[in-house]
Formats: sequence, structure tokens, C-alpha cells
Amino acid sequence: MTETPKVAIVMGSDSDLQVMEEAVEALERFGVPFEMRVISAHRSPEALQKFAREAESKGVQVLIAAAGGAAHLAGVLASHTTIPVVGVPMPTERMGGMDSLLSTVQMPAGVPVACMGVGKSGATNAAIMAVEILATADAGLRKALREHKKELTGQVKGQDESVQQWLKDRTQ
Amino acid sequence: MTETPKVAIVMGSDSDLQVMEEAVEALERFGVPFEMRVISAHRSPEALQKFAREAESKGVQVLIAAAGGAAHLAGVLASHTTIPVVGVPMPTERMGGMDSLLSTVQMPAGVPVACMGVGKSGATNAAIMAVEILATADAGLRKALREHKKELTGQVKGQDESVQQWLKDRTQ
Amino acid sequence: MTETPKVAIVMGSDSDLQVMEEAVEALERFGVPFEMRVISAHRSPEALQKFAREAESKGVQVLIAAAGGAAHLAGVLASHTTIPVVGVPMPTERMGGMDSLLSTVQMPAGVPVACMGVGKSGATNAAIMAVEILATADAGLRKALREHKKELTGQVKGQDESVQQWLKDRTQ
Amino acid sequence: MTETPKVAIVMGSDSDLQVMEEAVEALERFGVPFEMRVISAHRSPEALQKFAREAESKGVQVLIAAAGGAAHLAGVLASHTTIPVVGVPMPTERMGGMDSLLSTVQMPAGVPVACMGVGKSGATNAAIMAVEILATADAGLRKALREHKKELTGQVKGQDESVQQWLKDRTQ
Amino acid sequence: MTETPKVAIVMGSDSDLQVMEEAVEALERFGVPFEMRVISAHRSPEALQKFAREAESKGVQVLIAAAGGAAHLAGVLASHTTIPVVGVPMPTERMGGMDSLLSTVQMPAGVPVACMGVGKSGATNAAIMAVEILATADAGLRKALREHKKELTGQVKGQDESVQQWLKDRTQ
Amino acid sequence: MTETPKVAIVMGSDSDLQVMEEAVEALERFGVPFEMRVISAHRSPEALQKFAREAESKGVQVLIAAAGGAAHLAGVLASHTTIPVVGVPMPTERMGGMDSLLSTVQMPAGVPVACMGVGKSGATNAAIMAVEILATADAGLRKALREHKKELTGQVKGQDESVQQWLKDRTQ
Amino acid sequence: MTETPKVAIVMGSDSDLQVMEEAVEALERFGVPFEMRVISAHRSPEALQKFAREAESKGVQVLIAAAGGAAHLAGVLASHTTIPVVGVPMPTERMGGMDSLLSTVQMPAGVPVACMGVGKSGATNAAIMAVEILATADAGLRKALREHKKELTGQVKGQDESVQQWLKDRTQ
Amino acid sequence: MTETPKVAIVMGSDSDLQVMEEAVEALERFGVPFEMRVISAHRSPEALQKFAREAESKGVQVLIAAAGGAAHLAGVLASHTTIPVVGVPMPTERMGGMDSLLSTVQMPAGVPVACMGVGKSGATNAAIMAVEILATADAGLRKALREHKKELTGQVKGQDESVQQWLKDRTQ
Repeated sequence: MTETPKVAIVMGSDSDLQVMEEAVEALERFGVPFEMRVISAHRSPEALQKFAREAESKGVQVLIAAAGGAAHLAGVLASHTTIPVVGVPMPTERMGGMDSLLSTVQMPAGVPVACMGVGKSGATNAAIMAVEILATADAGLRKALREHKKELTGQVKGQDESVQQWLKDRTQ
Repeated sequence: MTETPKVAIVMGSDSDLQVMEEAVEALERFGVPFEMRVISAHRSPEALQKFAREAESKGVQVLIAAAGGAAHLAGVLASHTTIPVVGVPMPTERMGGMDSLLSTVQMPAGVPVACMGVGKSGATNAAIMAVEILATADAGLRKALREHKKELTGQVKGQDESVQQWLKDRTQ
Repeated sequence: MTETPKVAIVMGSDSDLQVMEEAVEALERFGVPFEMRVISAHRSPEALQKFAREAESKGVQVLIAAAGGAAHLAGVLASHTTIPVVGVPMPTERMGGMDSLLSTVQMPAGVPVACMGVGKSGATNAAIMAVEILATADAGLRKALREHKKELTGQVKGQDESVQQWLKDRTQ
Repeated sequence: MTETPKVAIVMGSDSDLQVMEEAVEALERFGVPFEMRVISAHRSPEALQKFAREAESKGVQVLIAAAGGAAHLAGVLASHTTIPVVGVPMPTERMGGMDSLLSTVQMPAGVPVACMGVGKSGATNAAIMAVEILATADAGLRKALREHKKELTGQVKGQDESVQQWLKDRTQ
Repeated sequence: MTETPKVAIVMGSDSDLQVMEEAVEALERFGVPFEMRVISAHRSPEALQKFAREAESKGVQVLIAAAGGAAHLAGVLASHTTIPVVGVPMPTERMGGMDSLLSTVQMPAGVPVACMGVGKSGATNAAIMAVEILATADAGLRKALREHKKELTGQVKGQDESVQQWLKDRTQ
Repeated sequence: MTETPKVAIVMGSDSDLQVMEEAVEALERFGVPFEMRVISAHRSPEALQKFAREAESKGVQVLIAAAGGAAHLAGVLASHTTIPVVGVPMPTERMGGMDSLLSTVQMPAGVPVACMGVGKSGATNAAIMAVEILATADAGLRKALREHKKELTGQVKGQDESVQQWLKDRTQ
Repeated sequence: MTETPKVAIVMGSDSDLQVMEEAVEALERFGVPFEMRVISAHRSPEALQKFAREAESKGVQVLIAAAGGAAHLAGVLASHTTIPVVGVPMPTERMGGMDSLLSTVQMPAGVPVACMGVGKSGATNAAIMAVEILATADAGLRKALREHKKELTGQVKGQDESVQQWLKDRTQ
Repeated sequence: MTETPKVAIVMGSDSDLQVMEEAVEALERFGVPFEMRVISAHRSPEALQKFAREAESKGVQVLIAAAGGAAHLAGVLASHTTIPVVGVPMPTERMGGMDSLLSTVQMPAGVPVACMGVGKSGATNAAIMAVEILATADAGLRKALREHKKELTGQVKGQDESVQQWLKDRTQ
């Protein structure tokens, strides 16, 4: 994407990509320019600090951080910048992502992280939250979000119709 | 506050006030006009829906929702509006707020809630997150956030000095 | 089913159908007329409110609500009606349904949800609980429930006989 | 109460009375005749079985069972009768009632317990749920429940007014 | 087994057999006569009470109870008899057996259950614990237990030798 | 106590005494000779091994082990002897004894510990379980246990009478 | 302390001092020179990075990091240095320190933190672990550790004697 | 390995080998001589005690202990020696290793275990921690650790490049 990114997605490892692809798809649906990076709080701390500062100075407006286990990525980003940081706790094989969730959400007073749910739903929602934040100053995005809400309602209606058919087929 | 509110704080019960007072103080520190309401997802559902819509139409830009137990307030607000909703899980006597946390954070794809930590730190952070969101289109607030970050650093430095004194007193 | 439904099953998503089919089968066994809908607390909140009110006015006597994650469906239904609401927490991939359970069961004073266990056993039991509620004013259903209890006892007896055979085969 | 009880509250220990007094008050508010007993699943199992059967034969229509720890009371009652059993998990000093909750709610298919939240809110809600069940065949109780819902809404409105006053006082 | 059983294994469902087969094998290894039954605390409560009493009168000396979810079997058996009851919490699909564990172990003062670990290890250990109890009055079993302990030590030694070989192969 | 002890209570720390006093009282009520020691799995491992062996050789028939946190005492005792070991998980300030419970109950196959509930109820029950084990070869203790069961039933009956009086007083 | 510190204790907040005083006392008992600082991973990230590097260059050999909630301090220190980092999870009011524990211990492969237990025991043990690490190259400290182990054994013996006296007093 | 081992890995069972192979590989990468043993705290307690003492006397400088469930291995080793003990909680099928984690990490004051994360990451990190400890007196290992840190940074950079390519491929 050649446009200046408004959102940056940072992942602690490339194994998070299969989850965070959901965020990519959602941002693309809304036409929001973004960049996506693999930078680790623990394995490349200096790159992370550098990235956080440059993001702010080049005009990125929302950061999305995905990490698992002792998930420090979102919190460390938030320590380096005043841009809103949205955290997505990655599922973990053994603990269902409870470790990722608690180490993302329980931030000390003064340094907030906007935590989403664990896994793919959280990845999608991080993108939607980023769009909602951008929409506070972008009437076009606000309108797109209202359309999106209608689509969600439409999807549920479609599911309802399938279930009515399933019931009908069953009782015949 | 007579100015048009940019942030609205909604609590599920007035017992949440002692926690959410932290958010009030933080918003006041940043000079952000806000309103604060008690509306319950379970006990006044129609008032909640009406409130959500009016908030959007009158220009509120961030909603902060505080609730405990089966904490549905943030999620239900998010279902009615496209404004960013920041959720603050209230501590619960028996489960330490784990019930509030999970019922706030684990939202389905498409309807995000920006979840903060449980209790007073979460309340403060909800306000800071609201300011960070407003600051995406308000250079003055951005600057104020940078000042706030420096103050945090200063506080830690002050604490460090006290501990050095404590150590010195101890060894004499 | 063309008869006026006495029970309505509401699911937050059609992916809940594979679990809630257990409830359908149980209601059919007891010959209780029911309807089944997909309506989401978060994605179609207005349809949900409309449904809740119409259900009460058209004579539905028990609502069964199935949802997962931040499972607000049962609680939101209960906020709109005085009909008994039975909640079924859906299993969740990462947290075993603990999130669904806590966000269904921990309702505030005044707005109860009758929570069942997580998953298929809970779905079956939601239907049996609905029948038990209807049976408080229906001697035929009361009798059917007593028969059902005898069948359960009979099933266990049959299982016991198989195990005796297994033991015998083993020791020969 | 000399009237034939429609609801029976059973507690595993008299130490549960301070929690279950909430259920007593709620039933009294609705004028529902009830009885209240201390019978233990583990310490007086025969009395429990006898009680369950007599309750059904003398016309009790809802059982409310309160127990803590390995909370078997609601489940054992449900094994002996086809009357709806509403379970209230008692708080436990060490585990916040999580043990009581799981041993009340996770019933096997065929033998449901309608589980409420842990503690006093759960006790109030057990009574309201009992009234909702009775109201399926009692128009007077249905009307009373609608009044109760309005009162809840009114309470929240009153709380909202206090908070508005608190805000006003603060900013003066 | 035609000998008078000294141990009785009771399972809440025949689906528990695949776990409890471990207990069968362990009792057979020690030559302890036993019986094995499927009786449910919730689905065949009268058969359970009858069984508990007859077990005591016919000379059964240890009861082993296996159940899952709201696992009341061990506790209800313990309410009906003074024979030691050993509980084995069954694994549960969604909660890893935590529900089974808490509803087995957290018994009220006066009515103990000897709780084992969740699943197959717990099943084996229930049998060993039964043998240890019988061995308090049976020198032959005491001796067999000492042999068993030596075998365990031998198994570990064998495993150690395999690992030494694995290391050697690796470094060559 | 000058008689040869049949039961030995071992605690990991003297701070466990306030909980384990319940076990002392219960053993005294049944007239069972016992000894009580403070020996730590982590701070006096050799004394523990020596104690385990001497206990077995001098005729102790049941060991009761109380420990908290990473509670290894019961398991380490069980590794050194074939006498039944009953474990009592001590409450912990921060984790409600969940750490003590899991590190006591989740023993590997072959080395069982009979785990009781967390805290004072568990301490009482450890003593009753010890009596139940001794009673497998002691008709007098068996009779005493039956008396104890009747007393429990009587206690519940007394509690029930108090509650009836409370209800009567209330309605007058 | 004017000597070059061999150990540095870092706390995320001065409120951790009441817990970490235990570590101070333990290091003093062993005569190990140390320094103690308040530096926050989230509020003073640059000071933390600077500290980590200078610590390594000036010869600090073990870092002890104490933090609570989303406890990133130990992990972030470990990202900046190759000195062993010992983490002490602080108790948290609502979650018993489970959040601190998981965000300290669940580090990704390559960047270890040596995690201690939650709270004061963990603080003491962090100091002992630091001494054990220094003792790998310091025969004097090794000897002191052996003395310390004997003292622990002696303490337990003293506690045992008190309990024997308590028993004797009781039975007289 | 014929060199005198500086590190000893002890596992409670050979089933832990598939996890602990990660530690073997990491120690080999750093050229640290080690030995690896299967010794069980519960099944071969005397061998464990003997091993702990000999390890100390023959110059082993770090012990790594891997165990699951009621994981007592690390704690029991720590009770017998003053060498640093690094604990690796094994994943458990039913509880995700939470039982292993709590029974490894929650050690009493005076007897520390350096706990790593659950599973393979923890196994790798146990080896790295051992190297960090040895490096406090070995400049060569310190240098190797700095190289290792650079490699980690390089790996992340490589992953970042792959993701940039993935994004590019996607948008074409």
C-alpha cells in the first residue's frame, strides 16, 4: 500500500499472521490504508521503540498490537506513544489465551491499551475499532460503519431464514 | 458541564461511582467536556437504546461503559451505535471482576468493545483512552497527552528518589 | 409448526444450531409447540427487542436463549420481558465456555436468567426445564416428565447391564 | 405462613440464611406463600428425599435450593422430583463460590437445575424466577412482575438523578 | 467375580468406563475382589441409596465413585454410608474436569470424600488407595504394595536407561 | 498421648495449626490415639523421610498431611510409604488454596494422595476419613461413625427448627 | 551501599516496596551488595532501557524485577540484557496476582525470566535465588547458603517443639 | 558427553522428553556440557536425593527439573541442594499445565525454584537461563548470549520481511 498508513498492525511473531489476517481483511473492506509489521517486544525491543516513535511522527493514528503468552507488545507500544493502542490477545495452546488476555488488559493507570477478545474475533474487532476511532473525524468512515452494522443485521436475518428452512424440512 | 459533551460515561449502577470517579477526574484534568449517566442494560433497556442514539446524533465521540458481573452494558451500547465504546469491568466481590472482564471483552466479530483493566486503573485508563481517541483530531489534546506521559515519568522518578532515601535511612 | 408456540428458542448465531438441536429434539419428544429464531443481541438489537415483546403478547411462556463468548442474549431478553428466560452458555474454542457461563449466570438482582450447563447437556436441559415450567399448569406434561424420569432410570439400568457383561467377558 | 406454600426454599445449612433472606423478602413482596427449610444433601439425605416427594404431592410448584462448596443440594432435589429446581450457589470464603457455581450448574442431560448467580443477587433472582414461573399461569403475578420491572427502571432513574446532583455539586 | 467384593466401583455413566478400566486393571493386579456398577446420583437416586446400604451390610470395605461435571456421585454415596468413599473426577470436554474436581473435593465438614486426580491417573490411584486402605488390616496386601513401589522405581530406572541411550545415539 | 499413635498429622509449618486443630478435635472425639508433627518437605526433607519410615514401622496406619502453596508434603510422604496419606490443602492468601489443591490432588499414577477440601472443613474431614479407614478393621469405630452420622442429621434438624422460629418471629 | 552492587532490584512502583523489603532483608543477611530502583516499564521506558544496559556494563550480575497486573517489567528487562532476570509477581487486589504471574512467567522462547511465587515468599526467594546464582562462582556464598538451609531446618524443629508443647498443654 | 556436566536436566518421566529435547538442543548450541536423567520425586525418591547431593559434589552448577501435574520434582530437588534449580512445568492434557505451573512456582520462602513458562518455550528458556547463570562467571558464554540475542533480532527481521512480501503479493 503506497498511501500513508493510518493504521499500523504489529505482531510479535509471524505465527500470529493467520489470526491477524482477519484484521487485514477488515481494514481493506473499509479502504483504510495500513501497514503491517513483525516486531517483538522481547526479541527486537529497539526496533519496537524506533517503530513506535516513527509511527507517531509519520501520522499513523491507531496501532494494533497482537501478541500471545506474556503478551507485552501492546503495553510496551503504549509506553512509547500517545496514539491509541488496540491489543489483540493471541490464543495460546495450553491456556486458551487467558495468559495473553491478562497480560494485555491489566495495564497500570495512565497507560491504556484497548483490549479486544482472544483470537480471530478480536482481530476483526481491532480493525473495526480502529475504523471507529478514525471515523470520529471522518464522516465517510462513519457512514461506512453504519452500512457495516446493517450488513451484520442482514447476515443474522439470512441465518434466521436458513434455520426456518431447516425446521420446515425437519418437520416434513 | 454546559459545553456539548465529547465523552459520555454510562454506569450500570450508582455503586460504580466510587470506581468511575477516577475517570471523571482524568477527563477534568484534560478539560474534556463529558456527561455521566446511570443507565442499566438490564433494568432500563429502553433508556439505554434511546441514550445511545441521541449520543451519536448530538456529537458525543466516545462512550465509556462501566458494569459488573454479567456486564452487558458496553456490549449493548456497542450494538446501538458506531461510536467507539470503551468498557470498564467493575470489580466483583466474589470473582475479582473476572466475570465482568470476560463478559465485556469477549465480543463477537463486528461489534468491538475497547476493554480496560478491572477497577480503578481501568477507570482512569478509559478516560485516557477517550482522550487519545479525541486527540487523533485535536493537536491540543495530543500535546496534553505528551505532557501527561512526562508527568508519569516524573512521578516514577519521584518514587525512585523516596526509595533511595528509604535505603539510606535504613543502612545508617 | 403451525400451533401457537409455547416455547421460543433464540440463538445468537446459526453456528449454535448444532448444539441447540438437542433442545429441539427434547421439545419434540414432549410434543411442546415451539419456534426457533436466530437473533443477535449485538448484531440485530432492535429485532431482539421486538421479538421479546411480541413473544410475550402472543403467549410464548418460556424463552430459551443460546449464546457464546460475551453472551448477552439471555440477559438482554430478560431485560425486555417477564417471561422466564432459560440461558444456555455455548462452548467457546479457547475458554471452554467459561466466558459464556459467567456472562449468562451472573445477572444483577431483579433480572434473573435460569442458567443451564455449558453445551449439549445444557441445551437438552433447557428444553426439560421449559417443560417443567409449563408442567406447573399442565398435568399431562407433569405425567410425561415422570415417564421421562423413569426412562432415565431405565437407561442407567441398561448401561449397568452392559458393564456387567463387559466384566464377565473380561474375566473369562 | 399458614397458606399452602407454592415455593419451598431449602438451604444446606443455617449459615446460608443471611444470603437467602433476600429470597424471603422478594417472595414476601410478591405475596407468594412459601416455606423454608434447612435440609442437607450430605448430612440428612433421607429427610431430603422425603421432603422432595412430599413437596411435589402437596402442591409446591417451585423449589429453590441454596448450597455452597460441593453444592449437591439442587441436583439431588432435581433427581427426586419433576418440579422446577432453582439453584443458588453460595459464596465460599476461599474460592468465591466458583466451586458452588460449577457443582450447581453443570448438571447432566435430563436433570436440569436453573442456576442463578453466586450470592445475594442470586438469592433475589431465585425468588423472581420462581414468581416468573408461577406467573405463567397467574395473571396477577404477571402484572406484579411488570410493576416490578417498572420499579427497577425507576430505581435506576433515581440513581441517575443523584449522580447528576453529585456532578453539579462537584463542579460548583 | 464370585468372591465377596471388598471394593465397589460405581460410575455415573457407562461413558466413564474407558477411564475406570484403569482402576479395574489395578485391582486385578492386586487380586482384590471387586464389583463394578453404573448407578447415577441424578438419574437413579433410589438405586444409589439402596446400593450404598447393601454395600455396607454385605461387607464392601471401600467405595470408588467416578463422575463428571456436577459430580455428585461420591458425595451422595458418602452421605449414605460410613465406608471410605474414594472419588475420581472425570475429565470434561469443556472444562478439563475442573468442574468434576471441585464438586467432588469441596465436601462439607463431617462427610469426607477421598478425592483423586482428574482422569486415568486418578482411576489407577483410586484402586491403589483402596488397596492401601485394605492393607491396614492385611499384611499380604501391605507386602504387595511394597513390591508395587519397587516396580515403580524399576520403571523409572528403565526409562532413565532409555534416555541415556537416546543421548548416546544423538551425540554419535 | 502415651498410647501408640494410629494416626499421624504432619504440617509443613506451625501456621497450619489453626486450621489443623479441627483434625485434632475430631480425632479426640473418636478417641483415636494420634501424634502431630511439624516437618517440612522443603525445609527438613531428611526428617520427613525418616519420619515416614518410622511411622510405618511403629504401626501408624494413616498419615494426614497439611501444606499450602506448592504443597508437596502429602505427595512426598506418599513417595516414602505405603500407608494411606490423606492430604489437606491449606488456604492461601492470594489464590484461595487453588495452588495447594492442585499440587496435592494431581498425583501421578501409582502414588495416590486422598485429597480433602481446602481449609477447616478439609481438616475435619481428614480426621473422619482416617477414622473411616481404621473402622474397616474396628467395629467400635464403625459404630461410632454411625453415631456421628446421626449427630450430623440431628444438627441439621436443630438448624431447621431455628429457621422455623426465625420465620415465625418475622411474620408476627 | 557504596560497594559495587552485584544485584539490582527494580520495582514498577513504590507501592511494591512493602513486599520487596523481604528481598532487601534477605540480601542484607547474606551481605550481598545491591541497589534498588523504582523504574516502570510503562511509565519510564527509556530509563528502564538505560538502566538495563548500564547494569550489565557496571557489573551487576543478577536483576530482580517486581511488578503487578500486566507485569511487563521483568520481560522488558530481559529483552535488553543477558544478565539473569528473576521476576517477582506482585499480589493484585482483585485477581490474587494471577495476572502478574502469567504475564511474568509465560515468556517466549529465547528470552527467559526466572519466575518466583506471588508476593512476599517470592520476594524472599528472589533474593535467595540471586545468592544461589552468585554462589556458582563464590565459595563463601555457597557456604552461607548451606548454613541458611540448616537454619531453615532448625526453624522447623523449633516449630515442631512448640506444637508438642501445645499438645501436652491441651491434654492436661 | 564425557566432559564433567555443568548442567543436569532431570525429568519426572520419559514422556517429558519430547518437550525437554528443546532444552537439550539449546544447551548443545551453546556447547555447555550437561547430563540428562529420568528420576521421579514420587516413584524414585531415594534416587532423587542421592542424585541431588552427588550433583552438587561433582560440580554441577545448575539443575533443570521438568515435571507435570502435582509437579514436585523441582521443589524436592531444591530442598536437597543449594544449586540454582530451574523448573519447567509440563503441559497437562486436562488443565493446560496450570496444575504443573502452580505446584512448581508457589514455593515457600527460603527454598526458591526459578520457574519457566509451560511447555516447549519453557524448556528452551530453562537452558538459556542456565547459560545466563553460568555466564555470570564465564565471559565466553556471555559473548555467546549476546550473539544469541542478535540472532533472535535477526529472526524477527526475517519474519517481518516475509510478511511484507505476503502483503505485496496480496495487493497485486
